[in-house]
Amino acid sequence: MTNNEFESSDSIRTARPLVHARTVTFDGPLHLERGGRLPSVTVAYETYGELNDDRSNAVLICHALSGDSHVARHDESDDPGWWDIAVGPGKPIDTDRYYVICANVLGGCRGTTGPNSINPETGRAYGPDFPLITIGDIVNLQQRLIATLGIKRLLAVIGGSLGGHMALTWATRYPEQVAGTAAIATSPRLTSQALAFDVVGRNAILQDSDYQGGRYYDQGPGPRVGLAIARMLGHITYLSREAMMEKFDADRFRPREVATQFETKFSVGSYLAYQGDRFGERFDANSYITLSMAMDLFDLGGTQEQLAESLRPARCRWLVISYTSDWLFPPFQSQQIVDALLVTNQSVSYCNVVSNCGHDAFLLPDDLPSYGTLVSGFLANLNGGDTDASDSGTVRIRKPTSIFHDPQRLDYHMMADLIPEGASVLDLGCGNGVLLSLLRERDHARLMGIELDELAVVECVRRGLDVVQADLNQGLANFADGQFDVVLLSQTLQTVIDVQTVIREMLRVGKRGIVSFPNLGYHKLRDQLAQRGRAPLVALGGGSRWYETHNVRFLTIADFEEFCRDHAITIHETVALDTETGDRISEDPNRNADLAIVVLSH
Amino acid sequence: MTNNEFESSDSIRTARPLVHARTVTFDGPLHLERGGRLPSVTVAYETYGELNDDRSNAVLICHALSGDSHVARHDESDDPGWWDIAVGPGKPIDTDRYYVICANVLGGCRGTTGPNSINPETGRAYGPDFPLITIGDIVNLQQRLIATLGIKRLLAVIGGSLGGHMALTWATRYPEQVAGTAAIATSPRLTSQALAFDVVGRNAILQDSDYQGGRYYDQGPGPRVGLAIARMLGHITYLSREAMMEKFDADRFRPREVATQFETKFSVGSYLAYQGDRFGERFDANSYITLSMAMDLFDLGGTQEQLAESLRPARCRWLVISYTSDWLFPPFQSQQIVDALLVTNQSVSYCNVVSNCGHDAFLLPDDLPSYGTLVSGFLANLNGGDTDASDSGTVRIRKPTSIFHDPQRLDYHMMADLIPEGASVLDLGCGNGVLLSLLRERDHARLMGIELDELAVVECVRRGLDVVQADLNQGLANFADGQFDVVLLSQTLQTVIDVQTVIREMLRVGKRGIVSFPNLGYHKLRDQLAQRGRAPLVALGGGSRWYETHNVRFLTIADFEEFCRDHAITIHETVALDTETGDRISEDPNRNADLAIVVLSH
Repeated sequence: MTNNEFESSDSIRTARPLVHARTVTFDGPLHLERGGRLPSVTVAYETYGELNDDRSNAVLICHALSGDSHVARHDESDDPGWWDIAVGPGKPIDTDRYYVICANVLGGCRGTTGPNSINPETGRAYGPDFPLITIGDIVNLQQRLIATLGIKRLLAVIGGSLGGHMALTWATRYPEQVAGTAAIATSPRLTSQALAFDVVGRNAILQDSDYQGGRYYDQGPGPRVGLAIARMLGHITYLSREAMMEKFDADRFRPREVATQFETKFSVGSYLAYQGDRFGERFDANSYITLSMAMDLFDLGGTQEQLAESLRPARCRWLVISYTSDWLFPPFQSQQIVDALLVTNQSVSYCNVVSNCGHDAFLLPDDLPSYGTLVSGFLANLNGGDTDASDSGTVRIRKPTSIFHDPQRLDYHMMADLIPEGASVLDLGCGNGVLLSLLRERDHARLMGIELDELAVVECVRRGLDVVQADLNQGLANFADGQFDVVLLSQTLQTVIDVQTVIREMLRVGKRGIVSFPNLGYHKLRDQLAQRGRAPLVALGGGSRWYETHNVRFLTIADFEEFCRDHAITIHETVALDTETGDRISEDPNRNADLAIVVLSH
Repeated sequence: MTNNEFESSDSIRTARPLVHARTVTFDGPLHLERGGRLPSVTVAYETYGELNDDRSNAVLICHALSGDSHVARHDESDDPGWWDIAVGPGKPIDTDRYYVICANVLGGCRGTTGPNSINPETGRAYGPDFPLITIGDIVNLQQRLIATLGIKRLLAVIGGSLGGHMALTWATRYPEQVAGTAAIATSPRLTSQALAFDVVGRNAILQDSDYQGGRYYDQGPGPRVGLAIARMLGHITYLSREAMMEKFDADRFRPREVATQFETKFSVGSYLAYQGDRFGERFDANSYITLSMAMDLFDLGGTQEQLAESLRPARCRWLVISYTSDWLFPPFQSQQIVDALLVTNQSVSYCNVVSNCGHDAFLLPDDLPSYGTLVSGFLANLNGGDTDASDSGTVRIRKPTSIFHDPQRLDYHMMADLIPEGASVLDLGCGNGVLLSLLRERDHARLMGIELDELAVVECVRRGLDVVQADLNQGLANFADGQFDVVLLSQTLQTVIDVQTVIREMLRVGKRGIVSFPNLGYHKLRDQLAQRGRAPLVALGGGSRWYETHNVRFLTIADFEEFCRDHAITIHETVALDTETGDRISEDPNRNADLAIVVLSH
C-alpha cells in the first residue's frame, strides 16, 4: 500500500490556517430556525476570478460536511483545495469566466462561527451550548454574505452531498437570486440507513469519556477516539464496495504501519486508523455533531407530493447528478428530486454517472470527464441576468451556434414539420439531441429529452438542452398528464421491450404523440422472408443481422394500426416514407414504405 | 413504532440459561491453528429429533456471530430459538425426519469455552489471554462433538453468515463426513467493506475506557458503550436500505421512548439504542472480538483459482443461497463459491432469492417460501449413507417419484433421443426441470441446469436436480472447456439478446450442443408477412403478439445455418418438426417445419 492510496481529495486537508480566507462579521443577533440565537456571526470565505461588470457571473460553491472555504488553490504555491480538479482556470468551473465564492458553513470550525468560537456573551467557547442549526440557517447566512459582496443574483449554486442540501435550499428559498442550481450526489433527505450511520458516529463521540459533555476545549485534545470512530465509519460510507476491493483486497493481510492506538491488523484497518487520527487533528467534535445533526434534520419531504411542494418555488434551471455506486446518497434519491422538478414543470437535466467511486466520486478525478462536462456545459448555457421568474416553466433556450444535421435521418425533418409552431415537446430516446437541436431553431416553447445513454446525455447538456437520463421501459410516472403538447418517439419503439407502457405513457404525458418506426411490411423485407426464407433485415436503427440488431420488436404499419385500434388510440396522420428515395408514399404504404411516422392521441 | 418493529429473530435472544443445553468436556490441551492452546474445552449443544438406526439423518446447524445452541424451541413452553421458523416438526429442517444438532461455537459466551470461561490453569477468566482462534478451530471442535455423539457422517451441515463459513470449512476439511452442505448468505471471505465495519466495531470496544485491556470481568459491566456501538453498526449492516426505509421512514422524527444513554432523536436512533443496550446485557465483549476476528481471518482465497483449490477437496452435494438485498455478504460472493464448485465439477444448486430483508433475510420469515423450500428440497434428496467419495463428480440422482410430461413440448423427447446414453448434460434455460427430469429416467452420468427464474430454480431443487440460477447473457465463464458431453438450449435462443455469447459458450463448455428454436421460415409465418402484411406471429415460447412476446430474436433455419457457417460451427444433424402434426420434416424444412433441433459442435 502506497502513501497515495491513503490520500483522497478530502484527507489531504490540514489544519493549517487558510491564508486566503477573508472574513465578514455580522453584528446583532442572528435568529435561528429552531429558536436559537447567536449574538453575532463571522463568515470565512474565499473568492476566485473576477466579478464581471453586470455582476452576473458569480458561482457559489457549497462544501460538504468536513470541507471549508478553500475549494481550490489560488496559485501554484498555495495549499491544495478540496475541489482543485473542478475549480480553477480552464477547469469545469472556470475561474477565468466565473467569479467563484466558497464560504465555510455556519457551525463549522474553519473560520465561520461554530461551537469552537468564543461566545461574546460569556467569553468562552460555545461548546455544547451552540444552538441547534439547520441547513436553512446555513443558507440564510450565505445569502447575507452574497448580498454583502454586492451580488443580487447568482449565476449558479453548486454543491455536493451536504452542499447539495444547501444548493436545494438556495433554489427554493431565494428563487429570484439563483439562475442555475447544480445538485450533486445529494438527496431530499437522508435515507434511514445514512441517518443511522450518523447516529452511531454521534453516539461514539458523545459517549467518549473525553467528550466531557462538550466542554473539552480547555482539557486536552477532546474526544479523539469517538471522533475517529465516527470518521472511520464515514469513510466506509464514502467509498463504494468496489472501490474498497480495489484499494484493499490485494494486500488485505499486509497493512501499512501506522502509529496509532487503533487496530491495524488489516490493510483497510490501517487506512481507517490513519483517516481517523488525521481527522481528529483538524476537525472539532462539536462541529461534527452540529453539522451532522443539521444534515439529519434536513427534509424536503417524505413523499413525492411533499417534495414537489418543497421544490415548487424554485425558478432556476437545474442540473442533478448522481453516481451509480453511491450508496450513501443513492441515485434513486436524485431521481426523486428530478421527478419532483418534472412534475412541477421545471427545467432540469439529470445524469446518473456510471462510477466505481461511491459517494466520493464527485471529489475524485475518475469520473470528471462526465460530471465535469455536465457542470461546464450547464454553466455555459445559463443566463445570469434577471429574468421574469414566472417564465421558468417555459424557459427560452439560447440557440446553439452550430447544428448537426444527420443526413441519414430525413425523418427528423418530417417529424419536425408535424409539430405545431410553439408547441412544448418531449423527445423520448432523444440520443445526443440532434432532433431537439433542430426544433430549437424553430423556437418551440419548451424542449426536453429523455435518454438512457450517458454519453448522449452529456452531449445534450453540452448543447444546452434539458435532458433526463431514464429507461423508457420504466414509464414516465412523474410527468403530469398532458404536460407536453407533443411527445416524440423517434425510431425507438422497435428497441423497447414494454411497448404498451411506453405508448400509454407518451399519450398520457403528451396531448399528441408522434412515433416513427421501420416498417416490416416493406416489400423488400417481405421478399427476404417469403422468397429467400431469411429473417427480414431491418437496416434502420442498429446492426442489421438477426443476432446483432438493437431491435427487439418487429412490426408492420398494419400491425401498429391494429395496436392503436385495440388500445383505443386515435391516429391523426400517417406519413409513410421510402427513405432510399426520400419519397412520401401514398399508395399501399404497408408494402411500399420502409418508415412510418404516425401522429396519435388518446 | 410498535414493540414488534424493535424485535427480530435475533434481538429476542436473552441471557437466560439454556435449560436444554447439554455439555461435553474434552480434557487435555486443544491445540489451535494459530499456535495457541486451551487446557481443556467444554462444548454446549442441543439436539432435536431422533437419530435413526443407521445414524444417517444427522443435520448440524452452525450459528452466526451472536447465536447459540438454542436454534429452536424444544416444546411450547420453551424460550424462542433463533431459527424457530426453519427448525422444528414439519418445518423445512424437519425434526420429525432429521436429528438436528446445534452447538455454541468455540470462543462464544453461551456455554462453550470462550474468553469469559475460567482458565483452569489460572483460576481466572481468560479475558484478553484467550488465544486467537479460527473457523477451522471452531469446526474441529464441532467435529469432536459429532464423533462423541457416535455420528460418522452428517447428512448435512447448514449455516448462514459466519455459520456459512463453518459449513464451507466442514465440507472441505471433513469431506468423508458430510453428504450435503447448505451455505447460506455467506462468502469465501469478507469483502473489504464488511471487514472495515468489523474493524470499526472492534476499535469502539477496545478503546472504551471500561474495556480495561479486556480484564473487566471483576469491574462492573465492562465496555457496554463500545459493545453497543459495535452492535448498532452491525444492525445497520444486517438490514437492507429498503428494509430500513420501510421500518423507520414513516415516523423518522417520532422515535419510540427508550431508557438509554444513547441518542434517541430519530426512530432509527431509538431502535439502534435499544439493540445496542440489549446486546450488552447478553453478550461478552471479548467473545465479540474473538469471533469477529475469526470471521475476518477466514479466507478461502482472494482469486477464483485459490477458491477452487480450497473447495476442491469437498465430496458433498451443495446448496448455496444468497439474497438480492444482502450487501454485507453480497450475492456475487455466493456466486464466486458456486463458480468454484462448478469449475471443480461438483454437484451444486444455487439460488439468489429476491428479498428485501438484507443479510438478515435468512433469519426472517419473509422469504421462507423460497429458501425454506430450497433447504427442505435439498435435504430430501440427499443420501446420508456412506458413498464412494470419488464419485462426487458424477453424482447419481434419485429418480423422482413422479414425472411431469408437457404434451406441448414434443421437442423434449426429440432432444432426449439425440443425447447419447450416459452422457453428462447441461441444460441452459432449464425452466422447472421437465426435460432434465425426463433425462433422469434414462440414467445419464450428470445432469445440471441453468435457469434465471427463481420459482423455476426452487422447483428444480425440490425435484432433486442440480440447478444454478444465472443469466445466460452473462456467459458461462466458470465452467471448464468441454466439461459436459452435451449442452442443451431448448427454445431459449430466441429469447436471448446476446446470441453469439450464448452459442460460443455452449460449444466451449459442451462437447456437443443441441439447440431448438422456432423457425421463422415456416410457410404459415411467411404468409403472414408476405400475403397479409403482418408481423409473423411465432406461437412457440411466450405471448405471440408482436408487442408482448418474450421472443426478441427471429430467425429461420437458413439464418441459423448461415450463422454456423460464419462462426465455423459444425452442424451434425438437424431435426425439423411440424409440431402441429408431430411429423419430422425432411422436404424443404426451412419452409415446412415450425421447429428445428440442431446438433452442433465447434
